[in-house]
Amino acid sequence: MYNYFNSIVTEVLTLKINQFAYVPTSHDKIVQELADIRFVTPKTRKVSDPVMLYRQFLMKFLLENQGHSTREHRLTTIMATAEQSVDEYTKTNAAISHEAFYNVALQLLQFEVGLDFDLTDPVKKMHEFGLPTTEAADPFDRDGLIDAWYLLLNTRTKFGQTLIDYLAGQGYYAQFGADSGLKKPVFFNGKSQAVFNTSKLIREVVYVEAPVDSDHDGKRDLIKVEVIRPNETNKGVKVPVVFTASPYDQGTNDKQADDLTHDVSKDQLVHKDPNDFTKVDVTADAPNTSLPPETKPEQMTDTAEESFTKTWTYTLNDYLLAHGFAVVYSSGVGTKDSDGYRTTGSDAETISTTAVIEWLSHNRVAFTNRTDKVGIEAWWSNGNVGMTGRSYLGTLANAAVLSGVDGLKTAVVEAGISNWYDYYRENGLVVAPGGFQGEDADILAELTFSRKQRANQYLETKQSWEHQLKAIEKDEDRKTGDYNKFWDARNYLNSDKAKADVLLVHGLNDWNVKLSHAYNLKELLKNDNLTLKTVLHQGQHEYLNNFRSVDFTDMVNLWLVNKLYGIENQADKVLPDVLVQDNAEEQTWKTIINWGSEKTKQVSLADEWFTNVNGNAKFSNQMPAEQFKEFSDNTSKWRSELYKLDTSKVDQNSIKLVSAPLEEDLTINGKVHLSINVASDQNLGMLSAKIVDYGKAKRLTPTPQVLEPMQINLGYNWRKDNLREFESEKKATEYKKITDGHINMQNRQNSYHIDDVVPGESYQVDFDLEPEVFRILKGHKIGILLFSADLDFTIRTNQEINYTVDLNKSSITLPIE
Amino acid sequence: MYNYFNSIVTEVLTLKINQFAYVPTSHDKIVQELADIRFVTPKTRKVSDPVMLYRQFLMKFLLENQGHSTREHRLTTIMATAEQSVDEYTKTNAAISHEAFYNVALQLLQFEVGLDFDLTDPVKKMHEFGLPTTEAADPFDRDGLIDAWYLLLNTRTKFGQTLIDYLAGQGYYAQFGADSGLKKPVFFNGKSQAVFNTSKLIREVVYVEAPVDSDHDGKRDLIKVEVIRPNETNKGVKVPVVFTASPYDQGTNDKQADDLTHDVSKDQLVHKDPNDFTKVDVTADAPNTSLPPETKPEQMTDTAEESFTKTWTYTLNDYLLAHGFAVVYSSGVGTKDSDGYRTTGSDAETISTTAVIEWLSHNRVAFTNRTDKVGIEAWWSNGNVGMTGRSYLGTLANAAVLSGVDGLKTAVVEAGISNWYDYYRENGLVVAPGGFQGEDADILAELTFSRKQRANQYLETKQSWEHQLKAIEKDEDRKTGDYNKFWDARNYLNSDKAKADVLLVHGLNDWNVKLSHAYNLKELLKNDNLTLKTVLHQGQHEYLNNFRSVDFTDMVNLWLVNKLYGIENQADKVLPDVLVQDNAEEQTWKTIINWGSEKTKQVSLADEWFTNVNGNAKFSNQMPAEQFKEFSDNTSKWRSELYKLDTSKVDQNSIKLVSAPLEEDLTINGKVHLSINVASDQNLGMLSAKIVDYGKAKRLTPTPQVLEPMQINLGYNWRKDNLREFESEKKATEYKKITDGHINMQNRQNSYHIDDVVPGESYQVDFDLEPEVFRILKGHKIGILLFSADLDFTIRTNQEINYTVDLNKSSITLPIE
Repeated sequence: MYNYFNSIVTEVLTLKINQFAYVPTSHDKIVQELADIRFVTPKTRKVSDPVMLYRQFLMKFLLENQGHSTREHRLTTIMATAEQSVDEYTKTNAAISHEAFYNVALQLLQFEVGLDFDLTDPVKKMHEFGLPTTEAADPFDRDGLIDAWYLLLNTRTKFGQTLIDYLAGQGYYAQFGADSGLKKPVFFNGKSQAVFNTSKLIREVVYVEAPVDSDHDGKRDLIKVEVIRPNETNKGVKVPVVFTASPYDQGTNDKQADDLTHDVSKDQLVHKDPNDFTKVDVTADAPNTSLPPETKPEQMTDTAEESFTKTWTYTLNDYLLAHGFAVVYSSGVGTKDSDGYRTTGSDAETISTTAVIEWLSHNRVAFTNRTDKVGIEAWWSNGNVGMTGRSYLGTLANAAVLSGVDGLKTAVVEAGISNWYDYYRENGLVVAPGGFQGEDADILAELTFSRKQRANQYLETKQSWEHQLKAIEKDEDRKTGDYNKFWDARNYLNSDKAKADVLLVHGLNDWNVKLSHAYNLKELLKNDNLTLKTVLHQGQHEYLNNFRSVDFTDMVNLWLVNKLYGIENQADKVLPDVLVQDNAEEQTWKTIINWGSEKTKQVSLADEWFTNVNGNAKFSNQMPAEQFKEFSDNTSKWRSELYKLDTSKVDQNSIKLVSAPLEEDLTINGKVHLSINVASDQNLGMLSAKIVDYGKAKRLTPTPQVLEPMQINLGYNWRKDNLREFESEKKATEYKKITDGHINMQNRQNSYHIDDVVPGESYQVDFDLEPEVFRILKGHKIGILLFSADLDFTIRTNQEINYTVDLNKSSITLPIE
Repeated sequence: MYNYFNSIVTEVLTLKINQFAYVPTSHDKIVQELADIRFVTPKTRKVSDPVMLYRQFLMKFLLENQGHSTREHRLTTIMATAEQSVDEYTKTNAAISHEAFYNVALQLLQFEVGLDFDLTDPVKKMHEFGLPTTEAADPFDRDGLIDAWYLLLNTRTKFGQTLIDYLAGQGYYAQFGADSGLKKPVFFNGKSQAVFNTSKLIREVVYVEAPVDSDHDGKRDLIKVEVIRPNETNKGVKVPVVFTASPYDQGTNDKQADDLTHDVSKDQLVHKDPNDFTKVDVTADAPNTSLPPETKPEQMTDTAEESFTKTWTYTLNDYLLAHGFAVVYSSGVGTKDSDGYRTTGSDAETISTTAVIEWLSHNRVAFTNRTDKVGIEAWWSNGNVGMTGRSYLGTLANAAVLSGVDGLKTAVVEAGISNWYDYYRENGLVVAPGGFQGEDADILAELTFSRKQRANQYLETKQSWEHQLKAIEKDEDRKTGDYNKFWDARNYLNSDKAKADVLLVHGLNDWNVKLSHAYNLKELLKNDNLTLKTVLHQGQHEYLNNFRSVDFTDMVNLWLVNKLYGIENQADKVLPDVLVQDNAEEQTWKTIINWGSEKTKQVSLADEWFTNVNGNAKFSNQMPAEQFKEFSDNTSKWRSELYKLDTSKVDQNSIKLVSAPLEEDLTINGKVHLSINVASDQNLGMLSAKIVDYGKAKRLTPTPQVLEPMQINLGYNWRKDNLREFESEKKATEYKKITDGHINMQNRQNSYHIDDVVPGESYQVDFDLEPEVFRILKGHKIGILLFSADLDFTIRTNQEINYTVDLNKSSITLPIE
């Protein structure tokens, strides 16, 4: 764990900029790197006077393709002290003080005098903002000035970019022109610079034949691949590849999928016949390895013949395009202009992903079009592939990592699924991803089957696709909610083949792709011989590359330079192993040793620490029909009753326990475990539990705020991105859910072994809730809510099922820091 | 009024695409224009068989820089009939039927078979979508096919662009390359095409010396101007200029302005001494015409020496950049890198705007930097300037139009202010722009004084700027709310010098810049010898250039080609004089003869048509202190009580009249007028009135929905824009405000002549409400709400003032269609 800057934060701040991707660098290397990017030149090497050198740096900063008078005038507008502009200061002083340097630095970093600082103690102000300052002597000697200038160029501006990236966006590198001999790529502080010409990007389409025949038409599936690569590759530069496998990218069938959505109000909890299943009984059959013959190219070419334009792109990828990476998009089987069928998470999807990686790493040939058998290599690629993307995109990155495919060196996985069962099911129950009640594997297959957006494909596949959808609906088995062979074939965690390094990113408030996906992947990978880094932020289902309070983009740059360019830049050492955004204080990022504390605190639910809010030891699943309908139609009404700590409309439907106020902050780190002794008066039952932080506080907003729209230049005259942040809500709220979980009482052992439930008989039901990192503030209380149907997540059944809990035999186990 | 397509809409639609910018074109001209854009070539001219020609058109449509096999394969994916792809169809049929042509057309327009249509009656489907079809013979002869193809290229896709603009975004024009001899500009159906290379735009800064010294430093104010012009101008192409004067563009002082915001809860309504003022007494003094000497250039150059990058841009401007217009941004006096002081709407702001226009139209010289006196002409400009922009940006366009400056040929004014008094005041009252309670001229001056974001400027101007702000605060006179010399100097409507053509655009739900700004400007201009077109949409304070249901961008293109390129393209004839989006039906645009109907319906407020909801003829301004505070803190609570038609918490504070249900639709068009006979028990009083549409209906959403993010390519690999639309809300609402108004009882004559109010004495108070166009549906009721302080708009005073209204002597006058 390396955390360069946090330690120097000295007081409560309104704006905090955290940097984790700065690489400590020796003076000699600093001089070399400044020469690479032309701040140090043959001319400046001759300048011994630090004042003169500083002025030359500033004039270079203002871009030498701007007029001399224009730049000199700009120097008169930047104040070095409250009395002197930096123009005057450098003309009248024999030395540069730290005070002058950091007064100017703050202005270069886009802080405003009068608004953000007042020119009196800029070094202190730098520290307040969480920004680094030099340890060089004051006033500067020549070397000290060079080191401080280098540090400054690697310091983040008020608007969330390093100063050198900001400068690149202003045209710093572009001013040198194509024929200047500027190195491409050029690395500065371990990060690849925006020296690539994004106005001349090459966009081309190829078709990769994947070793799979998912539509059983007797032909291997041809997969469309969209490549965006720097023009510099045509002049001999080999670049690594960032590959985003997005099933959504070629279009989605929104309305058709919406029309198929399951009605969770019609679902019923059913009694399941007990079984003696072990893992073997639900292990997916080995995939059919007999394949139609491979198509061999009849000739080869270096030139693609199809181009494309995009609407959606991922701004992190756009940033990387300017910084010396090719970006490749491919949507896989069953998407527009590709062959095959999609069945949500199947082996065929993985194979259509890894086939692209194989092409990119020179282990497979592609074709220029669907018909002519003209082969084409990824000759411009250096053979190293990384993956990026969030949600289903991150999921396919997980799939590729766990396939162990050669050529894939790393993946930045944001909110990816690691086991599809955990996405649509939980402990023998149908449990929806948050916000998507009624979605299931069949719906998502329909959504992403964009192949049918070509009219001929629509007509050709209509009947067999309907048949396919019915098969998925049967196999996904909404009736029992059990783990089965269908789901086992979609559990990437079955694999032990991972060898690519992984940067795992997940929102601690993501109830769509829940935290267990990241946690379980981490658990699987931690024993492997690979580097794993984890970043947990306070978002729901968000990308993280444009936030002010964390230099995630720089972290990714440093990471990918190491993994894909093979540059030894200390990425593994510099980047924290586990970086967590604090939930209780805005703009605060902490490094922790491990996600999942080994220290636990177990408390009986009958402990006097808890108050039983409505005095229940019993509760029913059923509520008055009209109320049930009202709550089903508007679950926010239901939630507000559920979380209430006084009389509520769900008093008969829940047990609510609330702890005494905490005497000090308590951080939950990992999976909360519940052990509930419960009886049902039916031969079935399901339990839902929520753990709640009770206490009035201004919590972070659920979705990030756009601080400045289109503020971030991702390159020179290239795409822009919004600057965002999770800020505190304006008004305090009373509570917030920490975590939750759900279990079918018949799945007390696991998600496929079915036990009986005898009416009236008590069972010990043990289950983990979703893993979290959550700091509960001193004075707050911990709430435990136990109930049956969870209108937001489980099926919405109003069956009469009455539960009796023995609180004396029930307990909660909190993993704590 | 020319409305080509609306008449052929035949049934209720889910998706309606309206086109108003299509220019009827003769066959000969069609052939010439298709030759200009290279669909007709020497080769196709020799093709006599319409089937062969059609196939060639399709192959060209698929871009000739794509491989032949790639394109032939694409033809197999497009269905001409339910049985045959267009590839097969054109190989096996002797003629092209309308059915085949429009089945293919719908697919080219991005409609999906299976989702949007089913290949059975495509001509009918085209009409359902509001799209045009040809009148040529079926099957096509050669000329008919050419005409139909031309019409199709000018038809809008499912995603809101003309097909030719979509095609340009795919690289249609770019494929020909820089040296192809493609005409630049090229006009197609009267609209300039996206043939300009946006990857090589030239961005440069110049400084214009405006003939004004607004900071009284003895020097004329130098104004920074940012120019973006096509690279083609370096090769001899002269282009017209679109100029956006945005005071926000160089940054804003958000926090400082926020801190100064007036507390409307501390304001009190005061008694004003009566006067006998006439307009002369409040007419602004003639501006001081003595000026410091003009700076003369000591040498001239063609080359600028400063460049820039932008964060904010206006997507309509970005679109225009690709289509052959230069785009210029300038922020005017008092903004960053310019000289001078801002005082919100002053003559100096206008002069700093028109000085830029003078430079752009070759009537003034600019300088390359602030110091060297090197002059530079706008040599690349054709001398014709149009302005664009919304809100303050549109305001400065109004100011420039009404200044009568030479060179300004037109302005597209979106939601511009025409009289600053009407922005911050109303009939002798302080009345805020909606959503900005407590804002005033001083606050906006502080917000836009970005000059101080340069540290030296901050320090230099600190004291005098504070003094300036105090002067504005005094002059704006929040105490009386009266019109005075300060406001008269900011009333652009005083001028009779307008000569530029105006395309006026305003949201019918804009309560920020209210409708009277557009209406009063229209009234002023209608007698002038210029062309005025008005577009009224259902937005609040929105841009209109990316909506699916109206081809606003094409209208602007047609308009600007006519006004700035001087091309006779029938723009004045083709574009409707007044285009209004319907409030009651989504995606519906209607042309009307005039905004402001001469037909009126006057009804006594005592008429039996009205029910007096709370039976009041009296009401008080005062409510219980606690309730007042609650309502002030959260005015939505107050509004919901105010609009209630049963018992409410404001029953003592209002008269609520509601009409009988309408027997047929009623469209209000213009200014509703109220004549109220009222007595106050104090020597002062203020009346507020709201006219309300009561009736359960799914109304349009207040803010537009993003239908498809980043779907619109504004050029080839250039900026993207979201596709938006005002859709109906998912749930029906009970009412909607139609319009409102406010008046100080002492300003019964006008906003500067003060009459007395004697307690207990009745006065006839006549006032207009904000002009509207609003269709009230059959079965709905019209509500009239009369009360005193309007917590959303007026000062929030809880003074005890009791009013008595004689409803028999009071009436409402509705301007109706």
